[in-house]
Amino acid sequence: MSNVKPVNLAEKLSLFSDTWAPRIVGSFNDNDLMLVKVEGAFDWHSHPETGDFFMVVTGKLDIELRDDTVTLGPGELYVVPAGVEHRPVARPVAAILLIEPSGTPNTGDPTTAVTKTRI
Amino acid sequence: MSNVKPVNLAEKLSLFSDTWAPRIVGSFNDNDLMLVKVEGAFDWHSHPETGDFFMVVTGKLDIELRDDTVTLGPGELYVVPAGVEHRPVARPVAAILLIEPSGTPNTGDPTTAVTKTRI
Repeated sequence: MSNVKPVNLAEKLSLFSDTWAPRIVGSFNDNDLMLVKVEGAFDWHSHPETGDFFMVVTGKLDIELRDDTVTLGPGELYVVPAGVEHRPVARPVAAILLIEPSGTPNTGDPTTAVTKTRI
Repeated sequence: MSNVKPVNLAEKLSLFSDTWAPRIVGSFNDNDLMLVKVEGAFDWHSHPETGDFFMVVTGKLDIELRDDTVTLGPGELYVVPAGVEHRPVARPVAAILLIEPSGTPNTGDPTTAVTKTRI
């Protein structure tokens, strides 16, 4: 009988339904492992110092760049390089695994960033 | 027409079949994003300074700890804490997404570690 459980992404995703509100599901070398549900367009932003890891779990996500768009489906990942402006857009809802250094503001700006809760 | 493609895990996994030979498929803030196919038991080892991220893409993986076992299926992830001895075991083959700081030896020991190639 194991007392140590893995993080089951589908199970964690069943615990919430609001969008653009990342939930921390684990940590890795001072990075937060987060799940987020997204729908519609987020704001254009960039993270000057850190790459931004996106992996789609369910649904479809467009990561708009200023001169291109990266489209991700389930089982696809993309890392937006540090400093590159981007805008995630999902229609309809998509579920995403995010990895960011702990404390990274989701909007790129601490004054507008959401607080990330742990589940 | 998009010129920027995401990393499709299934597509990358179709490019190789050997086991215990991680392929680098991307990078993220000085971490390597890697895919590896595993079968049977690896050696017991630990990484003194770094957590070890495992996410199962296909198959089933047991991560044996000295006093417990964590069993992961597709869509499940687990981070082995820094310094914790562990032994990955898969029967039959499983495909895993790994994330480790660049340069981390896969065995915990630079003298026995494999070279990671990029695909």
